[in-house]
Amino acid sequence: MSTSSIPFQPPCATVREVGLRDGLQSIATVVSTARKLEWIRAAHAAGQREIEVGSFVPARLLPQLADTAEVLAHAKTLPGLVASVLVPNTKGAERALEHGADLMIVPLSASHAHSLANLHKTPDEVVAEVARIRALRDASGSRTLIEGGVGTAFGCTLQGEVAESEVLRLMQALLDAGADRVSLADTVGYADPASVARLFAKARGLVGDRLACAHFHDTRGMGLANVYAAWETGITRFDACLAGIGGCPHAPGASGNVTTEDLVFMLERMGVATGTDVTALLALRQRVAGWLAGETLHGTLWRAGLPQNAAPAVLRETATA
Amino acid sequence: MSTSSIPFQPPCATVREVGLRDGLQSIATVVSTARKLEWIRAAHAAGQREIEVGSFVPARLLPQLADTAEVLAHAKTLPGLVASVLVPNTKGAERALEHGADLMIVPLSASHAHSLANLHKTPDEVVAEVARIRALRDASGSRTLIEGGVGTAFGCTLQGEVAESEVLRLMQALLDAGADRVSLADTVGYADPASVARLFAKARGLVGDRLACAHFHDTRGMGLANVYAAWETGITRFDACLAGIGGCPHAPGASGNVTTEDLVFMLERMGVATGTDVTALLALRQRVAGWLAGETLHGTLWRAGLPQNAAPAVLRETATA
Repeated sequence: MSTSSIPFQPPCATVREVGLRDGLQSIATVVSTARKLEWIRAAHAAGQREIEVGSFVPARLLPQLADTAEVLAHAKTLPGLVASVLVPNTKGAERALEHGADLMIVPLSASHAHSLANLHKTPDEVVAEVARIRALRDASGSRTLIEGGVGTAFGCTLQGEVAESEVLRLMQALLDAGADRVSLADTVGYADPASVARLFAKARGLVGDRLACAHFHDTRGMGLANVYAAWETGITRFDACLAGIGGCPHAPGASGNVTTEDLVFMLERMGVATGTDVTALLALRQRVAGWLAGETLHGTLWRAGLPQNAAPAVLRETATA
Repeated sequence: MSTSSIPFQPPCATVREVGLRDGLQSIATVVSTARKLEWIRAAHAAGQREIEVGSFVPARLLPQLADTAEVLAHAKTLPGLVASVLVPNTKGAERALEHGADLMIVPLSASHAHSLANLHKTPDEVVAEVARIRALRDASGSRTLIEGGVGTAFGCTLQGEVAESEVLRLMQALLDAGADRVSLADTVGYADPASVARLFAKARGLVGDRLACAHFHDTRGMGLANVYAAWETGITRFDACLAGIGGCPHAPGASGNVTTEDLVFMLERMGVATGTDVTALLALRQRVAGWLAGETLHGTLWRAGLPQNAAPAVLRETATA
């Protein structure tokens, strides 16, 4: 017989907002720079301290993120905010260094087929690119951190299975090439809590706290279950999108990233401090939802409201039988 | 530092279908007896072996379930099917015994306020009723099992907090009064995985396998996460509703019970055999959804489809970049 054994429950966790990058790049609506800044200010005011503000890719590829430099500059004015950007290559990294991002995330796809289709490089070519990015960073004297993000870590829409051994090999290779830390992402929503528990336990066994973040999608409803399974292995940083924006291009209408406000609520409910005010997040969600009319949004808390026995006496349901 | 420790992973689990009772009683549409029988036959054909077919309550209270005796009679003709009914009192129990239900579930609300509002009895009066039901059962010579279902085990819309000690006391009292087994239900969707892990571990520590089932709602998106947390404590039976029908009367549009097809998919994906064909369940979902036009349905798998690396090569997404 089994008993749940959690020898150490981390008392706090970080929900990293990736809606401005992963969310906005996946939808048709282009949100203005002014509104992005409003979003970031409100998220900061709600207590969020890590925000992925954009991506340094050519503007013709992702016009939604063409203003990343300007958004980053504003984010850097907010006290205590760790502003990250996604960079696909050395060109992007040069811009991230130039504009002083706190963190640059270099995506790698553990699926060979997905890597070729999306990044036009093999996974090992991405590892080599990270080595060049590390050299650039060191030569510049910059303090910008480098995170290697291992995507399709639980399978892929193109090649199907992705071997755990390959995921772990590439994660280690990224660190060996000079990444300061790594993260694992279920890019297409294939993970289940048992596979998360297995892979994250192995990965932490290999690299410890240098495995710094988990990125889950809610495509098949398991986003929060996967977060919980990863949290049980000691992970304390999770990517999420406000209002669950993003979606999966392979499954129209399906959820994208884990929803920020739902995840913050779950963690706080579990007694894991996020430093974030869920009520303020719900208000921000409503504002952002107004900008995204016609887009499919996700999440449950905004609809159900906070429970009657939640600590803050706000947004309570009507107490009827 | 923590590592996920699951000394024993149960190799199989049961998803008990409660859509015909918990689901249908919460919605406006009245599904005909013929369609209920069609649903049960298809669920049985898909591999489901435990189905809550209705409730023996006065027809004026729940006209949706007025045909429970007829539905039960049909369910009993299906080989290997465990047909359960909900009974609120000795009158209902007499009918369950008369019609030969395999299992009768007697609901108890651990919240005093909720118990008075919904059952018009205190929790301890329900315990006393279970003692009378046990006496009836034994006098009848019937083999119908009695399950005491402890609801509002994680809080309540009326009184807010429900003490764990009270939940555990009432669970034990139900067994002492003669229930063959007990279950714990998060009636209003207040549970989080940490509270589930804590309460279920304590409850199993007290009564072991006589804690036979977990009943979660997905009101705030944590349904599957809660299932996983309970599964880690050794629970291997979970209630669920096809298409997530039901909802919470206190939160319009919010999800009700955990969705059967999503839960079966998660368990199978985790390597936990459910004996159920998820493809057949998805087809059944589509049929039932057609009967429930205008009702709010839930679930994610029907929309996202099975992943590319799922074992059965069906319902796959288009493999594009």
